[in-house]
Amino acid sequence: MAGRGGQLTLRLWPLEGIPEVRRGDDLPQLLARAASEQGVEAGDVLIVAHKVVSKSEGRVVALDEVEPGPAARRLADETGKPPELCELILAESARIVRRRGGTLICETHHGFVCANAGIDRSNVVEGLALLLPVDPDASARRIQAALSARLGGRVGVVVTDTHGRAFRRGLVNVAIGVAGFEPVIDRRGGRDREGRILVATDQALADELAAASGVHMGKDSGTPAIAARGVATIPAPGTARDLVRAPEHDLFRGDDAPA
Amino acid sequence: MAGRGGQLTLRLWPLEGIPEVRRGDDLPQLLARAASEQGVEAGDVLIVAHKVVSKSEGRVVALDEVEPGPAARRLADETGKPPELCELILAESARIVRRRGGTLICETHHGFVCANAGIDRSNVVEGLALLLPVDPDASARRIQAALSARLGGRVGVVVTDTHGRAFRRGLVNVAIGVAGFEPVIDRRGGRDREGRILVATDQALADELAAASGVHMGKDSGTPAIAARGVATIPAPGTARDLVRAPEHDLFRGDDAPA
Repeated sequence: MAGRGGQLTLRLWPLEGIPEVRRGDDLPQLLARAASEQGVEAGDVLIVAHKVVSKSEGRVVALDEVEPGPAARRLADETGKPPELCELILAESARIVRRRGGTLICETHHGFVCANAGIDRSNVVEGLALLLPVDPDASARRIQAALSARLGGRVGVVVTDTHGRAFRRGLVNVAIGVAGFEPVIDRRGGRDREGRILVATDQALADELAAASGVHMGKDSGTPAIAARGVATIPAPGTARDLVRAPEHDLFRGDDAPA
Repeated sequence: MAGRGGQLTLRLWPLEGIPEVRRGDDLPQLLARAASEQGVEAGDVLIVAHKVVSKSEGRVVALDEVEPGPAARRLADETGKPPELCELILAESARIVRRRGGTLICETHHGFVCANAGIDRSNVVEGLALLLPVDPDASARRIQAALSARLGGRVGVVVTDTHGRAFRRGLVNVAIGVAGFEPVIDRRGGRDREGRILVATDQALADELAAASGVHMGKDSGTPAIAARGVATIPAPGTARDLVRAPEHDLFRGDDAPA
C-alpha cells in the first residue's frame, strides 16, 4: 500500500463554500480564504472553472442588449442560432474553423479552438451569455498571487473550460489559463526504460489536471474549484499559450487537404 | 477540510511491483494480485497503459521481419519513415486522415484517430514496434474479470494510449479500452443550477481518468497501472467505442471544407 498514503498519491478534492459569484467579487480572495480553510498548501495546484472567473470579471452579456450586424444575421440564418449570440461569437472569434449545421467551431482571440468561441449559455440565467475571460492567464496569475500570499508558498493555478474534441465523443476540461508552473513538460531528449531517446513526449500536465478536475466538476456544476496535491510541478510563470498548437504545426486548424 | 478525507476526494496511486511484461504473461492475474496487495477495492477503477497489454498479447513486431509492399515504400519515400514501419502503419490503419511531412495521423481499425496508427517505438527495444491491442475493450474485460473475481466486486478498467490532439500542444492519455462502467455520462436533459435544461454535457469520464493517470505515468514510463478511488461510475459493460465520435458527426475527420 506504499502508494496510497505516500508522496506518489495524486489527490483532488473540491473546495467547498464558494458563494455564487457576481461581477466585482474578489474571486482571488474568496478562493484563497476557502483554500486556506480547507487544507490547501504550498506545492498544491488549484483548478478553477472559468465560469466563476468570467462572472467575477463581468464577462456576462444580456443577449437583448446586443445589436447584431449583417454578418451575425447571415450566420444566424445559416445556423439557426439567435443573431445576438452570433454577434457575440463573431466578436469573440479570430475566425471560424469549421461549420456544419448549427455547430460552429471557432478559434478565439486567445488561440483556443472550441465551439461557439467558448460562449456558454448553460449555468447562467436565461437570456444571458457567459464569455471567456479576456486574459485567462492574467486571471490565473491574480488567483495565484492571492493564494501564494495567504498560504506562504507557491500554489499553481489552472483556469479551465470544457471542450469537445475532434474525433472523440464527450467533453473534457482543458486549461485556458495557467500560473505558477510549466503547463507542458518537455521530456524530449530524456531516455526511456530501454535507453532509447524520447522524441515526442511533451506531457500536457495542465490539461491532465484540468481533465481530472472534471471528474468532480461534471457531477456538480456548482463546484467551481478543485485542489490537487501530489503533482510534481516545475516552478515557472506559466501560460496556457504553451498549450496552443501553433497553427503552422496544426494539421486540422487550417485548410490542409486530407490525405 | 471535509473534502480531503471524505467521499468527495479523488485519489490516484500507482500500482507498484508489476514486473517487466512479456508475451504470454497473464497480465490480468499480475494486475489483480498487485491490486489486491495494494489496497484496490470494489468500486475503484484501474487505469492500465496499453503498452503492458500489447506486450502481454504479443503485439510486438520485429521491424526486420516486416516485408514492405509498394504502398509502404511510397509512404516511406514521402515521410522519411522506415518502409517496414510504414507497412505496419498501413496494416493498422483504416485510412490516413492527415499527412504533412513526416507526420501521419491515422484512423485505426478500432476508429481511433492518432499518430502512426498508435504504433510505438519508444519504451520497446530498438528494432521493435509495439502495436495497439487488437481489441482493447476485450483486453479491459479480461483485466476486469480477474480484478472483480479477486476483489469480490466490480472494479472498472480503462486501457489507455497517449495521443496528441488537434489544436493543442502536448500529449494526454485517452481511453482505448473500457470495461465495467459507462465511459461517457450523458447529462443531457438534466438541469443546471439556474434550472436551464442541459443540452450538451456528455462527460467523457473514461478520458478524464485516462488523462489523470498521465500525471503519474508521464513521470515514469515504467508505471503501467494507476488505481483510482472516489469516482462515481455507472455500472455497465462499457466500451471505448462510446468515446469515438461517429465520422458523420465529426467535423475534422473527413474532407469537410473549412468554413
